[in-house]
Amino acid sequence: MGLDYRVNCCPDGLVTDRRRRIKVLDCTIRDGGICNDWHFNKDQVRRTYKALAASGVDYMEVGYRTEEGQFDRDKVGLWRFCDEGDLRDVVESGDMKLSVMLDAHKSTPAEIPDSIDDTLIDVIRIATYAHDLDKAFQLMEKAQKGGFEVFINVMAVSTLEPHQVDEFLLKLRGSGVDNVALVDSFGALFPYHVRYLVRKYTNYLGDGIKVGVHLHNNQQQAFANSIAAIDEGVDFVDATIHGMGRGAGNCPLELLLFYLENPKYDVRPILEMIEYFGELRQELRWGYHLPYAITGFFNIHPRSGIDRMDSEDRYKVLDMYAKLTRRLEEAAK
Amino acid sequence: MGLDYRVNCCPDGLVTDRRRRIKVLDCTIRDGGICNDWHFNKDQVRRTYKALAASGVDYMEVGYRTEEGQFDRDKVGLWRFCDEGDLRDVVESGDMKLSVMLDAHKSTPAEIPDSIDDTLIDVIRIATYAHDLDKAFQLMEKAQKGGFEVFINVMAVSTLEPHQVDEFLLKLRGSGVDNVALVDSFGALFPYHVRYLVRKYTNYLGDGIKVGVHLHNNQQQAFANSIAAIDEGVDFVDATIHGMGRGAGNCPLELLLFYLENPKYDVRPILEMIEYFGELRQELRWGYHLPYAITGFFNIHPRSGIDRMDSEDRYKVLDMYAKLTRRLEEAAK
Repeated sequence: MGLDYRVNCCPDGLVTDRRRRIKVLDCTIRDGGICNDWHFNKDQVRRTYKALAASGVDYMEVGYRTEEGQFDRDKVGLWRFCDEGDLRDVVESGDMKLSVMLDAHKSTPAEIPDSIDDTLIDVIRIATYAHDLDKAFQLMEKAQKGGFEVFINVMAVSTLEPHQVDEFLLKLRGSGVDNVALVDSFGALFPYHVRYLVRKYTNYLGDGIKVGVHLHNNQQQAFANSIAAIDEGVDFVDATIHGMGRGAGNCPLELLLFYLENPKYDVRPILEMIEYFGELRQELRWGYHLPYAITGFFNIHPRSGIDRMDSEDRYKVLDMYAKLTRRLEEAAK
Repeated sequence: MGLDYRVNCCPDGLVTDRRRRIKVLDCTIRDGGICNDWHFNKDQVRRTYKALAASGVDYMEVGYRTEEGQFDRDKVGLWRFCDEGDLRDVVESGDMKLSVMLDAHKSTPAEIPDSIDDTLIDVIRIATYAHDLDKAFQLMEKAQKGGFEVFINVMAVSTLEPHQVDEFLLKLRGSGVDNVALVDSFGALFPYHVRYLVRKYTNYLGDGIKVGVHLHNNQQQAFANSIAAIDEGVDFVDATIHGMGRGAGNCPLELLLFYLENPKYDVRPILEMIEYFGELRQELRWGYHLPYAITGFFNIHPRSGIDRMDSEDRYKVLDMYAKLTRRLEEAAK
């Protein structure tokens, strides 16, 4: 870019070092799947796997691992289950680690393979609410016995009281978990929140546990918040191709790879995938939309925003805004 | 929002004070007009004026001021000229200040009214390249004689060498200008650039000159960069309704007003305007698109991205990426 400000007001060495060690976890199929009930066909997932592997991304989260019977096979796609046979059809060998997610409040240890040797899965990621942490730990115990790397994502932190955050972090500290993500489920956080929380997570969790972020884009902050988290020294960042994900979506992987400017990553396979996902982009309609911005600002689940987007008056939001304002005012009384 | 992290890790007093004094300049019609050659009808502009005034926005930039003959009236709309008669049809009296923009390299002092008493215009904003600053000063002289507040926007700073930035800032320091905006014409800057440049602008320009930002959203950083600029103590921020603007667009006004949480602003009239602009949103297609992300990352004018978006293969960007990469490599030789 020549001798311009993009180069010349570059980050100091510290920040550069931090950027260098960042790992990237793609959750396009798992989180994007929430938009279409995981109805990606095998060709789509195979191509996604190949593109991510070629781009140098460190982890691919390919879906949820779920026991047969928990969901109706007629309603949800393959990646809500991640059967070993289906994984074998889409995954090749290579350096990229394969992750599946389990919900602490829905899953049982039986859903986790007995040993890492029996499966293509490398990583078990457990999504939990703070009050379900004990259930998460039961899943973790099974996963660690099997030799898996374990991530725990504590959801909806933006709705907790400070002492509740301190409490779950202290529980995690002694737990033996490998990685913990700060999760902005509602796209409610601004960079100053993220900086504060990343510092708190890092301090509370101590040296042995890696810290990352999983951020939503309701207020166009997912990538900006990722940058703030990187500045604060996180170890990994979640992203999805073109930001695909429920509601407003996630941190766009292509922007993150641009930003990291690390020769171990190649953004081109991701650019190709975005072109390939063209029709899906029209159909699934993730991205910046007013109803999602409002649920983000009010720090609530995107559900009502998604309902609004499915209605005829997608952008008729004044009543939604008024209702949420009243709710706040009543809560403050 | 109750006792949650959104409240409890709130900014310290300093940041709160800074937020409180921020002024907001809306340039929906002026910058959004670049998408549709300023073909907004009077009803649209009248409604925009009313909504902005009702929301408490401090400045509205209603278009460019241009001499008759400079542009073809058959091709561009009214707001490329901002005739006094047309302004009178859409503007009401009130506290909100009205701004028009002039291009230093295209305009003459004759385009500026002789006196603020003869016009509804309060502010003359001059867009200039660093090398045209003397032309900008000629326009400013006329504007200041007429009693107008003057803003100068130095465009495409991200392409300049550091000493060139220092030079134009020193010229501006002694010039008597009231307000200077840091302009990210190409959507190339990340928050750390913005922090660095805002500090530099503030230090070089000294106490008498207010500093603001005009930012583009190619890499989803317009709002995040506005937040970084606010943290660094800027005096004003540019935004547009729903981010409307050339290419990827600008900082969305609704998100900025959410963030500022200042009772002097009311976001509701803006939410209504976004609904009203519904069809335009489909038609003008500003927002996050891969070709704009690429021009932003490569720090070039969005022109080639806009051309790509007008073509059939909007998202076929690998060749574009390859060409720009080669250009960089050759420049580095």
